[in-house]
Amino acid sequence: MRICRFNANRLGIIQGDQVFDVTGALAVLPASSYPLPRHDLLIANLDQVRAHIEKIMPSAVPVPLQRVNLLSPVANPGKIIGAPVNYRKHLEEARSDAGIHHNNQVLEIQKIGLFLKANSSLVGAGEGIAIRHPQRRNDHEAELVVVIGKTGANIDRKDAWKHIAGYSSGLDMTTRGPEERSMRKSVDSFSVLGPCLVTVDEMADASSLDFSLTVNGEPRQKANTRDLIIGIAELIEFASSFYTLHPGDLIYTGTPEGVGPVVPGDRIVTEFQGIGRIDVAVRLAAS
Amino acid sequence: MRICRFNANRLGIIQGDQVFDVTGALAVLPASSYPLPRHDLLIANLDQVRAHIEKIMPSAVPVPLQRVNLLSPVANPGKIIGAPVNYRKHLEEARSDAGIHHNNQVLEIQKIGLFLKANSSLVGAGEGIAIRHPQRRNDHEAELVVVIGKTGANIDRKDAWKHIAGYSSGLDMTTRGPEERSMRKSVDSFSVLGPCLVTVDEMADASSLDFSLTVNGEPRQKANTRDLIIGIAELIEFASSFYTLHPGDLIYTGTPEGVGPVVPGDRIVTEFQGIGRIDVAVRLAAS
Repeated sequence: MRICRFNANRLGIIQGDQVFDVTGALAVLPASSYPLPRHDLLIANLDQVRAHIEKIMPSAVPVPLQRVNLLSPVANPGKIIGAPVNYRKHLEEARSDAGIHHNNQVLEIQKIGLFLKANSSLVGAGEGIAIRHPQRRNDHEAELVVVIGKTGANIDRKDAWKHIAGYSSGLDMTTRGPEERSMRKSVDSFSVLGPCLVTVDEMADASSLDFSLTVNGEPRQKANTRDLIIGIAELIEFASSFYTLHPGDLIYTGTPEGVGPVVPGDRIVTEFQGIGRIDVAVRLAAS
Repeated sequence: MRICRFNANRLGIIQGDQVFDVTGALAVLPASSYPLPRHDLLIANLDQVRAHIEKIMPSAVPVPLQRVNLLSPVANPGKIIGAPVNYRKHLEEARSDAGIHHNNQVLEIQKIGLFLKANSSLVGAGEGIAIRHPQRRNDHEAELVVVIGKTGANIDRKDAWKHIAGYSSGLDMTTRGPEERSMRKSVDSFSVLGPCLVTVDEMADASSLDFSLTVNGEPRQKANTRDLIIGIAELIEFASSFYTLHPGDLIYTGTPEGVGPVVPGDRIVTEFQGIGRIDVAVRLAAS
């Protein structure tokens, strides 16, 4: 299934260029009271939600995908994890471009480890990106995103695939500067996710997906996930050796070469094989 | 008020060495449904909760503080922010001790910026600390913690005080190694918060609090928050220049000199003027 969220918290299934409204399936989610769960309710109850979607799909009303406002397909991730410099050629460009490295050391991901992005930075493609520091360089970074489906710690890479609910694509937007990644990449709207969650049963092989990014129609990034330095299963092993992963946790797997600046007025489009397309407007943040 | 959470999600008011059970006040919190709010419900509704606490306090049953199991006074922070090397003497010790810096540059906080800790790392004092990497050095870091009360972005330092719900004390536990802070400081149980939330009206001046930390009774850290390099209001200004702060967001303000290793079996005790004492057991994490 290709599950999306859109407009005012509607739930949808994307088929071709249409979205079928299956918001009624959210009724199977348990009620929540304080203290709230620290995981995503939809992902933690994905089997039940899917069963209900199957029931109501025959009578679901389709709307054109182009006409909806896409929200993040995961509403409440417990945490958003990022993988820095996880493509060899991006490591080389980061080391050679002072506009990227800002005189900080650029170490290999095996040493640097993974970083966190603030949950408050998460948006859907339809919400757009708001530049908060226009005087700095703000870069696009197209990435495959893994959505965790099952709680686990110290997960062996052999078992990692069982912990995945599905995949999405994302933009790990980045303000350049001397600060640690977890600050520069956590600006409101700087974690874009979409267009949908592709459940694992619909994804033949996430380790070999073509993807590309354009800005105002100009090609900027083009790569394949087979060139990840630390692959999907190893990222889950690495992350879960430090902290427990919960349903809905997101892993932004890293961006390839070709990162570059965007400015208010730009339009970023990414195409991910097997996942889909997002079209994201860049604006200046309200002051 | 000194608001705590304890045992099986009970709400309490600490007075002297007693905890008054005011769990009934949670009834004023709004019901939540998917998608869940990205802020802490209790902090976002603190005025209403306090009003209800006032009503039921006269009939509340006290239990000895020593007998309860303390949970984190904030259950669902949207994000946990940390301030690195925010005391001058800790910057000096971090630069001189290879066991701390691991050949990474130790820059000033003004350059490094703030880091994030995973929400999944948050525990109360009664839950203890679990060491996941016993082969590495794992350090205690006692800190004043600011609890955000009101949503805001680009907050001027002059207005920052209005955005604070209260204060608590915390341990920003740290596994040493080459990885970025947001990974090494996000191990499950590595963000301890407690014993309570001291609401702003009960705190004369958080900018001048004595605090200390002992391990197995041996003095390790002793400082005063007046020696913060970037003070409370400036931290709020700095953080909110990158991302919106929401009710319940936590800012761990940084640790002074004297950080050092703990091992399973150790007992960490901190005493914070105006906030209280936490007594935290260190164990080995289950594998």
